[in-house]
Amino acid sequence: MLNLSKIAEALPASPIRKLVPYAIAAKSRGTKVYHLNIGQPDIETPEVALEAVKNINEKVFEYTHSAGIESYRVKLADFYSKRGLNVSADNIIITTGGSEALFFSMLAICNAGDEIIIPEPFYANYNSFALEAGVRIVPITASISNGFALPSAEAFEALINERTRAILICNPNNPTGYLYNKAEIEALRDLAIKYNLYLLADEVYSDFCYDGKEHFSVLQLEGVDQNVIMCDSVSKRYSMCGVRIGAIITRNCAVLDAVLRMGQARLCAPLLGQIAGEAAIDTPKSYFDGVKSEYVARRDYVIDALQRMEGVVAPRPAGAFYAIAALPVDNAEKFAQWLLEEFSYKGATVMVAPAQGFYSNPKTCVQNEVRIAYVLNLEDLRAAMEALEIAIKEYNNK
Amino acid sequence: MLNLSKIAEALPASPIRKLVPYAIAAKSRGTKVYHLNIGQPDIETPEVALEAVKNINEKVFEYTHSAGIESYRVKLADFYSKRGLNVSADNIIITTGGSEALFFSMLAICNAGDEIIIPEPFYANYNSFALEAGVRIVPITASISNGFALPSAEAFEALINERTRAILICNPNNPTGYLYNKAEIEALRDLAIKYNLYLLADEVYSDFCYDGKEHFSVLQLEGVDQNVIMCDSVSKRYSMCGVRIGAIITRNCAVLDAVLRMGQARLCAPLLGQIAGEAAIDTPKSYFDGVKSEYVARRDYVIDALQRMEGVVAPRPAGAFYAIAALPVDNAEKFAQWLLEEFSYKGATVMVAPAQGFYSNPKTCVQNEVRIAYVLNLEDLRAAMEALEIAIKEYNNK
Repeated sequence: MLNLSKIAEALPASPIRKLVPYAIAAKSRGTKVYHLNIGQPDIETPEVALEAVKNINEKVFEYTHSAGIESYRVKLADFYSKRGLNVSADNIIITTGGSEALFFSMLAICNAGDEIIIPEPFYANYNSFALEAGVRIVPITASISNGFALPSAEAFEALINERTRAILICNPNNPTGYLYNKAEIEALRDLAIKYNLYLLADEVYSDFCYDGKEHFSVLQLEGVDQNVIMCDSVSKRYSMCGVRIGAIITRNCAVLDAVLRMGQARLCAPLLGQIAGEAAIDTPKSYFDGVKSEYVARRDYVIDALQRMEGVVAPRPAGAFYAIAALPVDNAEKFAQWLLEEFSYKGATVMVAPAQGFYSNPKTCVQNEVRIAYVLNLEDLRAAMEALEIAIKEYNNK
Repeated sequence: MLNLSKIAEALPASPIRKLVPYAIAAKSRGTKVYHLNIGQPDIETPEVALEAVKNINEKVFEYTHSAGIESYRVKLADFYSKRGLNVSADNIIITTGGSEALFFSMLAICNAGDEIIIPEPFYANYNSFALEAGVRIVPITASISNGFALPSAEAFEALINERTRAILICNPNNPTGYLYNKAEIEALRDLAIKYNLYLLADEVYSDFCYDGKEHFSVLQLEGVDQNVIMCDSVSKRYSMCGVRIGAIITRNCAVLDAVLRMGQARLCAPLLGQIAGEAAIDTPKSYFDGVKSEYVARRDYVIDALQRMEGVVAPRPAGAFYAIAALPVDNAEKFAQWLLEEFSYKGATVMVAPAQGFYSNPKTCVQNEVRIAYVLNLEDLRAAMEALEIAIKEYNNK
């Protein structure tokens, strides 16, 4: 018998994988499925990026430098500097998506069995990167009662031990949409200094901050240049998830050197995506203004609708394009499956991501939360919310 | 002190990294450097692939399926089937380059400390993938005396123990150019069956077979469907290394499922590269005929020139676009550095990859071999070989 590795056995399937066959079955019955479960925005990629790809005149699609195309890194340093993140091209390594940035970061700083503390609920793929890198994730539970704000320093300190290597946050947060404020980031800085930890930040949603609130990056902290590693991506910023371009940005030269050696092993990040990414930096401000006002309208519509539903708790997040809602149902996984398997209203149903998949222990976590991605247009969101409200009643009356 | 991980500390730099500053210095002195050290072909990417990218009319560069674009996988299955590799789309997962295919394969089948036997000299980046996956590479040394043919079954058996999980070959081979024949692949099959091992084959150079010899893929073996994993790439086949598209092809469903879960964690392989890869399947046969005859002319020119040089041993390889030559010098690393630092002939010098970087122990391996990539046009190769011959004499007379 040819076995798989323990890592391969343990790697989780996508949290919504179990639901996919039910969604397919629903569609084959003619039921329209509103996908509130995914993070694929319907927003168009900026014209400058689309055009850059169409106007490629290379005759050979060659390897780029393993750290990324030099002119792209220079332009990206300028992009960050204009936002108050004082970095040079030498502080940046282009990666194959934010995914690779996170995996390389973990691999660079953790030995097998080392621990990274992450507020939960968290992006489910962190589990996979951690498993692949031999890292143990130590969750620190955030609560819907205060909108998933950062847990207290004392709560972090209770979890820190000699195996703790880093704290990882996603800001703004997927799946909660919570935007950590400057004071919270500074609290993390203090912990990083006090306990000699890396502070790893996934800031791929940094453009999606609402209500006049500003994003505060870990790279804006002072006195922790050696501790801070920021992971970024073009996926959400420019709605081009498919090009697979991200970046690791840090002022820690040893980390950069290690990541470069990982980068040399896989040769380079995708050339065509880098061309799109470099061009996208020239996206006009009007594009982001349009995207932001669209998301605010969607968020407000969804949150208002959820808050009007009896028994639903849904804090209004200030970032990203996700919200977590606690529903008056016994179990979000069962409810999500039932929505696809048995429910329809006006010929349609709704697919949501049960939040169990975003907690480190799906068995013991709160069981009635779902993540809603407001990545559909307002008209579809209206129909989806109407169906959801009726579904909750019907589910509880069966 | 914030330390790096042990893996990060151990990850090797690119084998020619030490030489790069010398190459830059040579160029800044006005010396032309003929790069025989790299695997970046100068051959143009097929027109169908370039055009497919230019004609993209997507408005959103979205994620693809984590296993790859369905139509691409179907077309690729047909492509392989026409070559006698009987596989379906379900046996294929599109990866981010052959690099990711190899890393995912290792991670899927090996626990930390498990061993993979690899004939050496081997592609240096295997060291990095193995380190990242916690795998111990056990080298089995091939010899220039028989052109780097597969070592005997007995030699393999002497290395197999309870930690051995797989044998990995690169066929045709980088760095030797050696093309393993059917009997050799069958010998590996017998070992895989006898000792219950995976047989992992890196076949990214399978289109580059010369002298009327045909490539025999591990996927053409019968009775070892569960053992065989093939890693492929579009990089060399279509001279589009930069798009970062590869594939894992296996009939082992458990491995496919594990690799899919790894693929879901990193979301998808690059969309634009997949579009180029799918289009490239329609590359006309004339393109490959042209490429092949060009490489044969280059190989013959280089090998003939090397064999004419006093004291040089250079077997004529039947595949890929590399050759290993043993030079009459004390140390290939020193010689390569000297070429860049001190030598020039007609205003030019040559950069070669010292073969020490392709052996698992650079200190104890043969010290006088270099890898030559014949990826330059004939005119440049002529000038490079002329310079190399004079350099060897001058180096030994200093």
